[in-house]
Amino acid sequence: MEKLQALRSLMKERGLHAYLITNGDAHNSEYVTGHWKTVAWFSGFTGSNGMVVVTQTQVGLWTDGRYFIQAENQLAGTGIALFKMGTPGTPDFKEYLSQELPQDGKLGIDGRVVTLKVYKELNEALQHKGITYAYTEDLLGLIWEGRPTPPSAPAFEHEPRFAGKTSAGKLADVRAVMAKHDITAYLAVTLDDMAWLMNIRGDDIPYAPVVNAYALITTDAAHIFIDQSKVAGFAANLDAQGFTLHDYNGLVSFLNNLPTGGKLYYDPDKTNMLLVDALPKGLVTKCDLPTDIIMTLKSIKSEVELTNSRNAYIKESAVLVRFIKWLKENPDISANTEADTAKEITRLRRQQPDFLQDAFSTIAAYGPNAAQAHYNPGPVGANLQPDGFFLVDTGGNYLDGTTDTTRTIVVGPITDNMKRHFTLVLKGYLAMERAIFPKGTKGMHLDILARTALWQYGLDFRHGTGHGIGYCLCVHEGPQGLSPKSEVELQPGMLLSVEPAYYEAGAYGIRTENIVEVYSHSETEYGKFYGFRPLLYCPIDTCAIDTTLLNDAEINQFNDYHQKTYELVSPLLMEDERAWLYAATRPIGIGD
Amino acid sequence: MEKLQALRSLMKERGLHAYLITNGDAHNSEYVTGHWKTVAWFSGFTGSNGMVVVTQTQVGLWTDGRYFIQAENQLAGTGIALFKMGTPGTPDFKEYLSQELPQDGKLGIDGRVVTLKVYKELNEALQHKGITYAYTEDLLGLIWEGRPTPPSAPAFEHEPRFAGKTSAGKLADVRAVMAKHDITAYLAVTLDDMAWLMNIRGDDIPYAPVVNAYALITTDAAHIFIDQSKVAGFAANLDAQGFTLHDYNGLVSFLNNLPTGGKLYYDPDKTNMLLVDALPKGLVTKCDLPTDIIMTLKSIKSEVELTNSRNAYIKESAVLVRFIKWLKENPDISANTEADTAKEITRLRRQQPDFLQDAFSTIAAYGPNAAQAHYNPGPVGANLQPDGFFLVDTGGNYLDGTTDTTRTIVVGPITDNMKRHFTLVLKGYLAMERAIFPKGTKGMHLDILARTALWQYGLDFRHGTGHGIGYCLCVHEGPQGLSPKSEVELQPGMLLSVEPAYYEAGAYGIRTENIVEVYSHSETEYGKFYGFRPLLYCPIDTCAIDTTLLNDAEINQFNDYHQKTYELVSPLLMEDERAWLYAATRPIGIGD
Repeated sequence: MEKLQALRSLMKERGLHAYLITNGDAHNSEYVTGHWKTVAWFSGFTGSNGMVVVTQTQVGLWTDGRYFIQAENQLAGTGIALFKMGTPGTPDFKEYLSQELPQDGKLGIDGRVVTLKVYKELNEALQHKGITYAYTEDLLGLIWEGRPTPPSAPAFEHEPRFAGKTSAGKLADVRAVMAKHDITAYLAVTLDDMAWLMNIRGDDIPYAPVVNAYALITTDAAHIFIDQSKVAGFAANLDAQGFTLHDYNGLVSFLNNLPTGGKLYYDPDKTNMLLVDALPKGLVTKCDLPTDIIMTLKSIKSEVELTNSRNAYIKESAVLVRFIKWLKENPDISANTEADTAKEITRLRRQQPDFLQDAFSTIAAYGPNAAQAHYNPGPVGANLQPDGFFLVDTGGNYLDGTTDTTRTIVVGPITDNMKRHFTLVLKGYLAMERAIFPKGTKGMHLDILARTALWQYGLDFRHGTGHGIGYCLCVHEGPQGLSPKSEVELQPGMLLSVEPAYYEAGAYGIRTENIVEVYSHSETEYGKFYGFRPLLYCPIDTCAIDTTLLNDAEINQFNDYHQKTYELVSPLLMEDERAWLYAATRPIGIGD
Repeated sequence: MEKLQALRSLMKERGLHAYLITNGDAHNSEYVTGHWKTVAWFSGFTGSNGMVVVTQTQVGLWTDGRYFIQAENQLAGTGIALFKMGTPGTPDFKEYLSQELPQDGKLGIDGRVVTLKVYKELNEALQHKGITYAYTEDLLGLIWEGRPTPPSAPAFEHEPRFAGKTSAGKLADVRAVMAKHDITAYLAVTLDDMAWLMNIRGDDIPYAPVVNAYALITTDAAHIFIDQSKVAGFAANLDAQGFTLHDYNGLVSFLNNLPTGGKLYYDPDKTNMLLVDALPKGLVTKCDLPTDIIMTLKSIKSEVELTNSRNAYIKESAVLVRFIKWLKENPDISANTEADTAKEITRLRRQQPDFLQDAFSTIAAYGPNAAQAHYNPGPVGANLQPDGFFLVDTGGNYLDGTTDTTRTIVVGPITDNMKRHFTLVLKGYLAMERAIFPKGTKGMHLDILARTALWQYGLDFRHGTGHGIGYCLCVHEGPQGLSPKSEVELQPGMLLSVEPAYYEAGAYGIRTENIVEVYSHSETEYGKFYGFRPLLYCPIDTCAIDTTLLNDAEINQFNDYHQKTYELVSPLLMEDERAWLYAATRPIGIGD
């Protein structure tokens, strides 16, 4: 393997005992372009979770259970050993490094793709050996011929009717938080935070309309580090809003030269170690805010953002109604692959105004494939069959909102057991949707509501109940969530997915997901109470419901959702589609 | 005020700028004897929450909202200023001390009644003033003439049929935990932990059958510090179990002389600062276990303890059935005061085998008094009236278990609103009782189940849903709990109260409380699942239920509980009592 030899030769020259290759970009993005797909280029393994360790004598790749088979196939013949994460007896990559590195050894990494948090975890495992790090040089960059260049498409302004608030106004909000915590400088690094702050959108990473940039905000300036050619068309407006533009690559030296008075905040979970390293030694930093400043501000959607999101979700609802009708009425379902169905959804989305791009790669999973929570059909996938369940988890980025929905659709005969599981998942969704809860309630308190029905049968799902979501930004957005560990207080204006599930290994998967907004329900002597309101209205397949497992209140709640679905979505539909939706949303009977 | 002058004179001699008087004993006990009721002796205020600060010019008492009126009455004419805790603009006692103490001032406290945790909180508030502390001298002891002496009643052995496990066996369990954490010495200080460890019971504090003692457990010895005359009758057995007896007052010098090798554990939340101060400076201590060693072991009841507790609770159930029958059939309810009803319960308890004492002062609260969650009727209390609700929260210590139950009983006409509130509280109880949950679930995850029904109406109750409970020990026992902040994983064998409530200020209070045990429900591919099983079976007043608010599953669950109540309790009853219970537990109808 030529690459391996070339890397080892560079390692030797620099005195490195090991080199760590990890996926990721310099902004801690969830999705990255080809330029950053270092593990795939080096090893051939294309799964999203991969980590390669190279020493002079060994080379290994770590990935999790979702990818064991794929990794075995893709690594065959490369000489790279597969380490199956979570398998008893298998060291994780930190334990491995801790064993293999010599005392006082030296580890090479690309400091741009390692956050301070990850570095600290690594160092905790390795400090007993006195390991030092070389992280300022990207060795793969020196040997990667034909490496894809980073995207250079122009950015565009997110118009006021979509953005709602000027970026000057957002800057003022950021500075108010800074003042509250005596922060005089704030380093913002994630791309959705930058897009929100500057009211710009672009096309620099897959699935999220963002632009590579950093910001260093002080009490009287807002320095933006960006490829200025991307924003040339509206640079005057950025200037008017209070931004000072710098070259994207100028950040490190700018940080080197920061004055050491005052206090600088950055988020250690997101900021890469190269940037942290660039801060002057005498500068006081503050890293202990519960969550990043812009992330927190951005998570509470404004009235304009909420109104637009509701509109985007009704467009998306129409897309999904059309898709499900197309699937249900398909004369030969087995002529379609999973990837065909994903393409059909994207095609339908393109007919909607202000659609930009899919918000993630659609999970279109037939039968047993759906038992893998994060299944990806790839470019083709399995053929559907007129039997059992088909699961689709899909979302789009519109200028007026980001969507994410899952429906489990009956495409053929199903068993009583499948009906029971579907209904238990539905009960979990309904319990969360109807929750009313006081101010101060956190995701970790509510999570259980989506599970108690499954727990009664000894069943569960092994992922959180829900995540935050962006506004014409990323499909996964913090800090809020619905999981047993989510410590963020929910607040009106936050958006969350609610996606209880059940996976029967080797057989089928069931997930029902809507995005809901947190809204102010009431105020009593016990304080403020909040509730959830769905944004998406798309039928939930009544063929899969065992009504004997639902009580009257649940049936009424379900029928209300379906009635509202018809009211809100039918105006966007053609007559035959309306008729289909009318039938699909007919009330289910009490005591059916 | 003579006491005040005497105290100030001693303070002056010792150069103290302030002296802090606080309730509590040297073991962090919840209830204390007259010897330790320093605030009441000094100020005349008898509420359970009181704190006095004395300077050369001022003297103030702090208490919370439950006691404002009582404190105003009891402090009248004493010259002691009342500080109403939680009232806007009122400094708490730490803020007050922080304001009043001079720079580098000196504060006097009785170090026996201040835990390390409380001391640290105090010091955090005062350190900016460079305050030092005098805590080795009990100044009140020097001026308190006729101070009640500590109890000297003999202790007794908790027989093997009750204790279940020998104390030698318990010592081995303690040492296994110590070994796991590399602990070579363990200082145990709370009285219920001591009683559990030594299988002894006594009468040294109110409401809990415990004996004043400390333990210092090492890998090869178990030193007990105790008034040896109390255990003289069975000292040989204590010796045989591996205990070495020392004088109660010998602990401080014993700690002074500990060898400094190894690692000593103590719980900083419970251990007083005099003891912490007595540890040799070179000794390594470990205080970061999530919860105290014996507290954790003790919280998981053995099979013998569980079987006995079930038996004790059926006896207690019979007591409460008789009491409610007596109350419901009383020809002139208004001839009875709240205290009369409490006495009647104690009288009925005395008829049961192996009864020791009440486990706490019964909360017998008629009408608006019940809106105070911790109401105490005192020696008389209000007269009952044939109208509305009467709430009784009561418990007993039996040799085979400690009980705690609350029932809200209809004693006259009630409104639809009262019925609705009663039923919402019942829904909360039923939701918790029927929960099935996976291993790893914590009280903070489950707490919401007792509240969602109330929350739907913007209602809530301002206390936790439940607490742990002892076994022939304290009515409040850790570490487990059901509250939004309880981080302890629930495990089979733990006992918990479930006591959702609703309080309508100035009108009435509703609380329904049972003790439940955590049991192993099932094991599936998702791991172990646990559930709750009630220990107490006593009718819940069907006159107060609005069945339209209950779904079929809830009605069935409720009727099952009542059916089991009749089955389990009727064998202990006389014929007329059985007939009454039969009527009281008749099924409520679906769609009533």
